[in-house]
Amino acid sequence: MVKAIEWKYDRVLMLDQSRLPLDVRFIECTDYQMVAEGIKKLWIRGAPAIGIAAAMGIALGSQDIKAESFDDFMERLDPIMQAMLSTRPTAVNIKWAVERIKKLLLANREEPVGRLKQLLIEEANRILQEDIEVNKAIGRWGAEFVKDGDTILTHCNAGSLATGGYGTATAPMLIAKGQGKRIQVIADETRPVLQGARLTAWELMQSDIPVTLITDNTAGALMKKGMIDLVIVGTDRTTRNGDVANKIGTYTVALLCKEHNIPFYVAAPLSSIDFHMDSGDLIPIESRSSDEVTTILGHRIAPEGVNVINLAFDVTPARYITAFFTEKGVFMPKDIKKLCRDKVDLEAIRIKP
Amino acid sequence: MVKAIEWKYDRVLMLDQSRLPLDVRFIECTDYQMVAEGIKKLWIRGAPAIGIAAAMGIALGSQDIKAESFDDFMERLDPIMQAMLSTRPTAVNIKWAVERIKKLLLANREEPVGRLKQLLIEEANRILQEDIEVNKAIGRWGAEFVKDGDTILTHCNAGSLATGGYGTATAPMLIAKGQGKRIQVIADETRPVLQGARLTAWELMQSDIPVTLITDNTAGALMKKGMIDLVIVGTDRTTRNGDVANKIGTYTVALLCKEHNIPFYVAAPLSSIDFHMDSGDLIPIESRSSDEVTTILGHRIAPEGVNVINLAFDVTPARYITAFFTEKGVFMPKDIKKLCRDKVDLEAIRIKP
Repeated sequence: MVKAIEWKYDRVLMLDQSRLPLDVRFIECTDYQMVAEGIKKLWIRGAPAIGIAAAMGIALGSQDIKAESFDDFMERLDPIMQAMLSTRPTAVNIKWAVERIKKLLLANREEPVGRLKQLLIEEANRILQEDIEVNKAIGRWGAEFVKDGDTILTHCNAGSLATGGYGTATAPMLIAKGQGKRIQVIADETRPVLQGARLTAWELMQSDIPVTLITDNTAGALMKKGMIDLVIVGTDRTTRNGDVANKIGTYTVALLCKEHNIPFYVAAPLSSIDFHMDSGDLIPIESRSSDEVTTILGHRIAPEGVNVINLAFDVTPARYITAFFTEKGVFMPKDIKKLCRDKVDLEAIRIKP
Repeated sequence: MVKAIEWKYDRVLMLDQSRLPLDVRFIECTDYQMVAEGIKKLWIRGAPAIGIAAAMGIALGSQDIKAESFDDFMERLDPIMQAMLSTRPTAVNIKWAVERIKKLLLANREEPVGRLKQLLIEEANRILQEDIEVNKAIGRWGAEFVKDGDTILTHCNAGSLATGGYGTATAPMLIAKGQGKRIQVIADETRPVLQGARLTAWELMQSDIPVTLITDNTAGALMKKGMIDLVIVGTDRTTRNGDVANKIGTYTVALLCKEHNIPFYVAAPLSSIDFHMDSGDLIPIESRSSDEVTTILGHRIAPEGVNVINLAFDVTPARYITAFFTEKGVFMPKDIKKLCRDKVDLEAIRIKP
């Protein structure tokens, strides 16, 4: 399985995803500035992966700090954390990683500085490892819904490259394959940024999962011909009513599934569920640069001056979603809100294939 | 309005669509070989447009023939007609144009050769003019279903560039604008070949119709927000039950319309209706080169060796189609088969907005 990021010999090793699939190049980050540059320049992308990168960047930067006291150490660590936070200001996972690291350090303020540096490396690796464990759990629960011989369609990239490993939408594919099920995947190319063509197709090929690339326009025709058995996608944010914000075009895939009676599953780590937001209608949808539509790899494909609407995400209402694959089990959209309660009988609301 | 092809000063003037929208270049074809090259190299494309081009190519080639008798003339014209037929062997409109020209010549076999040459020019211009008249009629009928302030979505290019003028799907837009209705158009970019981005957006800008370009993934989100009032698309072939083969992705747009209660109209000249074919299930669907998906403008966007499914068309079943805009009026899918009867009371089956 592809690894987007690793801590290796006191360096951060990062796969440069901006060059994929034409060029597979790992970058050895020797200082925290290089890690920050990697996040900024999209060598690494995907919410969990950039959280891990930020934690590793902070650990890496801390190793060079010369400090005698805890307060001194924290003062010198602050610009490093700020550098990570400023790479992608809206990234929730970077904020989350920084808060988690601060809390850890405050709980260990009596430790010598050398030990603090060691704790930061351990914590960054723990964040990576926890992410992998969450994804493997999603994969195990989800794989129960994948049968031998199934063809699975996915949209965008919610794969190993976006996470510490296994991915979210791809974890059930990897686990099912490990269980000996013969599966194949249809990857939507996912315009405008083509994550399906550039990343998903590539990483599934690396994992020896048969994958076929299609334009986003083609999914409907394949469903009509009975060539798709199920769909698994990731999610950027899920609200407590089970609405899902994900890459633009996800809503259309969900509608196509409804019309063709094909199960539509969303792989959602609990960390991606916003239990404070009631409905997907409240999610602000980012509009991105028109260049993403009018140029491809820097080459112009549309008239100069044409007006463009380029929405980064769309919202799929809960009623189109068959179930959520989470690390705690598989649940119906109506039960999502129960997952934030302290005492919830998971077994009572889990669904079986 | 943009003209894809014209007979001018005994030359065939052709807009080189393969360079659009980056470069607007007209090519003056001085012999029939250049016209054939233009059809082959996709300087001109679109079923009606290449039929017109073939007729003009034959007329142009005939001017240089030295012949004394009708039989002699026909013998020398034959390789010119064959050259046109071999440009795109599956193009029905080229066959149709050649048959029509042969019939005309046979009916005028007593005329001197000079007069035959003149008749060929007149006939080519008549084919062009008839196409424009058909499209204008489609536009007039269709425009009745377009209201002031409407936003119309279209997929692919069924515009002026694909025809002698006005286009099929675009004719109601042009006529509605001419009637003073303030309309705007949303153009799906239409992967893989991007006819929407390259051609539709460009030609509507030339006609001063406000147009906004989107990725094919974005149509669903706009419909959900209530931003689309109606859809008009073209058709490559319509069967007698009202099923429509059109550019890949059309079926998905039709499904989105059904879900959002948006009217889905197909602009279909009667010549595009195959009254001998019972249902769209019988239409063979062309699979095209994987390069169209894995490269854009010659630049690779997907891993080497990835498997691809690239269907040129999909079939939209009649039940998703609100109505057909034809040159004889606007009809429900169930009434399409009646249009081939000799004595049909059109007024009885025409629908009104």
